[in-house]
Amino acid sequence: MFINSSYVGLKGHQATQLLFLFSLCLLSSINIIEATVQHLKWEIKYEYRSPDCFKKLSITVNGLSPGPTITATQGDTLIIQVTNSLITENTAIHWHGIRQRGTPWSDGTQGITQCPILPGETFTYQFVVDRAGTYMYHAHYEMQRSAGLHGLIRVLVPEGTVEPFSYDEERSIVVNDWWHKSAIEQSTGLLSLNFSWVGEPQSLLINGRGPFVLTMVPGKTYRLRIASLASLSALNLEIEGHDMIIVEADGHYVDPVIVKNLNIYSGETYSIIVKADQDPSRNYWIGLNVISRKPGTPTGTSILNYYPISPFKVPPTLPPTGPLWNDTLYRFNQTKLIKSHPDHIEPPPPTSNRVIILLNTQNKVNGYIRWCVNNVSLNLPTTPYLIAIKEKLRHVFSQKPALETYKYKNYDIHSVLKNPNATLGNSIHRLEFNSTVDLILQNANALSSNISETHPWHLHGHDFWVLGYGLGKFDPQIDPKNYNLVDPIQKNTVPLHPYGWTALRFQADNPGVWSFHCHLEAHFFIGMGVVLEEGVERLGKLPKSIMGCGQSKSLVRT
Amino acid sequence: MFINSSYVGLKGHQATQLLFLFSLCLLSSINIIEATVQHLKWEIKYEYRSPDCFKKLSITVNGLSPGPTITATQGDTLIIQVTNSLITENTAIHWHGIRQRGTPWSDGTQGITQCPILPGETFTYQFVVDRAGTYMYHAHYEMQRSAGLHGLIRVLVPEGTVEPFSYDEERSIVVNDWWHKSAIEQSTGLLSLNFSWVGEPQSLLINGRGPFVLTMVPGKTYRLRIASLASLSALNLEIEGHDMIIVEADGHYVDPVIVKNLNIYSGETYSIIVKADQDPSRNYWIGLNVISRKPGTPTGTSILNYYPISPFKVPPTLPPTGPLWNDTLYRFNQTKLIKSHPDHIEPPPPTSNRVIILLNTQNKVNGYIRWCVNNVSLNLPTTPYLIAIKEKLRHVFSQKPALETYKYKNYDIHSVLKNPNATLGNSIHRLEFNSTVDLILQNANALSSNISETHPWHLHGHDFWVLGYGLGKFDPQIDPKNYNLVDPIQKNTVPLHPYGWTALRFQADNPGVWSFHCHLEAHFFIGMGVVLEEGVERLGKLPKSIMGCGQSKSLVRT
Repeated sequence: MFINSSYVGLKGHQATQLLFLFSLCLLSSINIIEATVQHLKWEIKYEYRSPDCFKKLSITVNGLSPGPTITATQGDTLIIQVTNSLITENTAIHWHGIRQRGTPWSDGTQGITQCPILPGETFTYQFVVDRAGTYMYHAHYEMQRSAGLHGLIRVLVPEGTVEPFSYDEERSIVVNDWWHKSAIEQSTGLLSLNFSWVGEPQSLLINGRGPFVLTMVPGKTYRLRIASLASLSALNLEIEGHDMIIVEADGHYVDPVIVKNLNIYSGETYSIIVKADQDPSRNYWIGLNVISRKPGTPTGTSILNYYPISPFKVPPTLPPTGPLWNDTLYRFNQTKLIKSHPDHIEPPPPTSNRVIILLNTQNKVNGYIRWCVNNVSLNLPTTPYLIAIKEKLRHVFSQKPALETYKYKNYDIHSVLKNPNATLGNSIHRLEFNSTVDLILQNANALSSNISETHPWHLHGHDFWVLGYGLGKFDPQIDPKNYNLVDPIQKNTVPLHPYGWTALRFQADNPGVWSFHCHLEAHFFIGMGVVLEEGVERLGKLPKSIMGCGQSKSLVRT
Repeated sequence: MFINSSYVGLKGHQATQLLFLFSLCLLSSINIIEATVQHLKWEIKYEYRSPDCFKKLSITVNGLSPGPTITATQGDTLIIQVTNSLITENTAIHWHGIRQRGTPWSDGTQGITQCPILPGETFTYQFVVDRAGTYMYHAHYEMQRSAGLHGLIRVLVPEGTVEPFSYDEERSIVVNDWWHKSAIEQSTGLLSLNFSWVGEPQSLLINGRGPFVLTMVPGKTYRLRIASLASLSALNLEIEGHDMIIVEADGHYVDPVIVKNLNIYSGETYSIIVKADQDPSRNYWIGLNVISRKPGTPTGTSILNYYPISPFKVPPTLPPTGPLWNDTLYRFNQTKLIKSHPDHIEPPPPTSNRVIILLNTQNKVNGYIRWCVNNVSLNLPTTPYLIAIKEKLRHVFSQKPALETYKYKNYDIHSVLKNPNATLGNSIHRLEFNSTVDLILQNANALSSNISETHPWHLHGHDFWVLGYGLGKFDPQIDPKNYNLVDPIQKNTVPLHPYGWTALRFQADNPGVWSFHCHLEAHFFIGMGVVLEEGVERLGKLPKSIMGCGQSKSLVRT
């Protein structure tokens, strides 16, 4: 009874493929056999769906929400023609975890790498999936992701490559939170002077459904690929009575860790190994619970069904309720367990050329509640940065560099700000090409006493090494001495824990303009992000298809 | 207690205006005193409103829905900077009844005269209001008008000009119908293969409110300017115990007609004269009722309040229920009463160069329900016609001329189509500049037996002469002999009655591309319109601001 998240893989004409392969032959002689081109045609539209028995408009991809799982092999080229049928709304789709090396215009971040796709228009994303692993895609346009435009990407290892773990079968799981109010209603509330918060989600969904059934054959071993597309909630996934072995995180192999349950933050992906090794005469609960925020949402319950038992046979127990929602230390410690697999360590550069410290605060700008980084709330220009920088349109955004630190010496991260006023801004961080950059995220108290939220930060265009996590205020003199430079995991999304800090390092080796932002939909929507640029001068001519907004309107015959 | 529909007139700096007037002096010596420039700054956004006590998102202009009434004087230039703050939705605003002579790019019809205005962007409409009268504005982008983006335009006669009627005071009234489902929900339903109809409106609103109070001083005479922005409903307005004298229709003076109640179709405007000449010791009901469709909406009730009686004093009677909803003849006859004022007749050309007969039918296209004209359902190209034609982008839309008639000889307009299948199309009618064109609208049976709806047709860029109305099938040999060529009214919107025909004539003397369509929001949305072009080759360079969609993306430095 297990229904895999639906998979659509529209292969192009064999003839075209052969021609393409033949062209590739002339250019390269490596891995010709595996490198294929996948053509996908997607239609994005609103459709009524009732994932938790409440009927509302969801945004679907070819009729599905979550959208079809993309399955490709490392080295494949994906050509995805996205037709926007949303009637009056624009869209843009981000391929989360795909680094877009050489194709920064396909990153799908509206306002940064492209103009939005207008209703009735078709935009073609083309990129290479250059590393095996578990990734995701989702709308990257205001709060549209939370309307259901999201899905999973599986990139398989090339034939003959052995992964550092084994399993019999694999399954994909997309988890997210779900509201009965529309994304437009939610975002209108956030932009109001009398800030109106939609509240906690009504439901937690697994593969877009309230009740979900995962069937396993007793004795077999499963790889579960899990992606969190939650808008707001940090989540904990527990399979009653079954240990989980974490083996992959954001496309990198993990030194295997056994956990009872998995904390997963929005924007993260994991592969876990689960063995169907329990009493095969019954079913088991799968429980999805909110952590880090005081839960106002029932446990998302699904069934682990032991074949051939009826999937409708209710387990004789109660569903897992997860760890205590406010047990920060529990989450902090699990985060610290995730390190690179010993056979797959790519050590970080021992030092960095630049350290950027990013203080996360909730503020007010002209009376409106906003999230800020170093007291500035990001406000995207109408002309995307990639176009503005490449075409030297300096009036499009502030040429003053973004602030790279805050006055940490006397800063009390545990108190509500005495002066919460901040400003909107669109300055960016311009990085020297190929330099090594440290990003230090520092959490603090929000606008209410004794509240510091967990912010999952996601970097576009790169993976970063996770050098360390701490609780309290980061000390630039002391804390770097304890960085893990030996076997840090590489990731693209990482939590910043309440009142804590997270230290990251990456190489600015991918020409383009890249967002680094809190992956909570409402937080990035009201300003919680920064923009990084490197090597744009190395890029060739930008595709015309990314243009049409701001300063990039008009007609040029080509 | 009367609250006029709110009026915002942000005059530009006096200095700028003086400079502009001085420049005008150099160019012209006529009417220098009256010609002023009005600068308006509008922000379009979603806000929660409860016009009938049900809270939902409305689209507002500077916080208002209906938006601010524009008041200008004939000859004024309006410069309206529209900032789209709808977050993810585009917009475009049409200035309904303003002919846009010389400024076809300011007509505001998305897909025809401009690309939509993207969120975060500001588009400037600039045009001259060259004739006194009552007009309106509204979103002209899919079904966005029904979300509340609409308002009234009053163009006053120049100082010293005497109108052919007199009154003490004037008031503005916007009537419309209102649903609790959003425009996105409504339009998603219409585009579904399992066609989902939102049903009849929940409320009828006057000036955006369920209950509304119109205060008059006993003995005084009032001019009421009335505009129907209804999405679907033909409406009947009655003021209990008070006759109405119709004196203006769509900006043209009417040979005065006394009626007990006024039938008003979506897109029409009227001025009526009402005297507060009844028993001043009580209040009276104003009743707004649905006609032509079987009503599923309560009478919209408002109070005519006789000063100084309390506006809360309920009249001792029952509100008017209007004429029988299906009394087609009653409506047909009132329509025929409207003729040009004898002192203001501008006679039509006695003959025309071209006759275009437009059969109105409801059809199916690939299983989807659509409205068609001559069996083709209009499907706008992604590049607006104005850009495509001016820039000779012939691949953008079909160069085959649109069909100009149907096989009327053996056509039975009273039966359901045996073969309801039709096609989508984007062909247009290209007219010789300065030619005289007749447009004959022919109604027929819809997809259900014994149903023929009333379609109010609106022409952009021109007024037309209303040469005649008929019930039954138009006969091109006989009916033109009975055209009124003596004193026909000029209008921009006119009803096509059930199973009837309407004959119009206009001069193709305004270079541009102009829509002619059913003004019911749901009907035009699914194809009920045609596109006319004349003299585009006479236009200068198109403004860059209308571009950005379809084939008009890319960067040109100017």
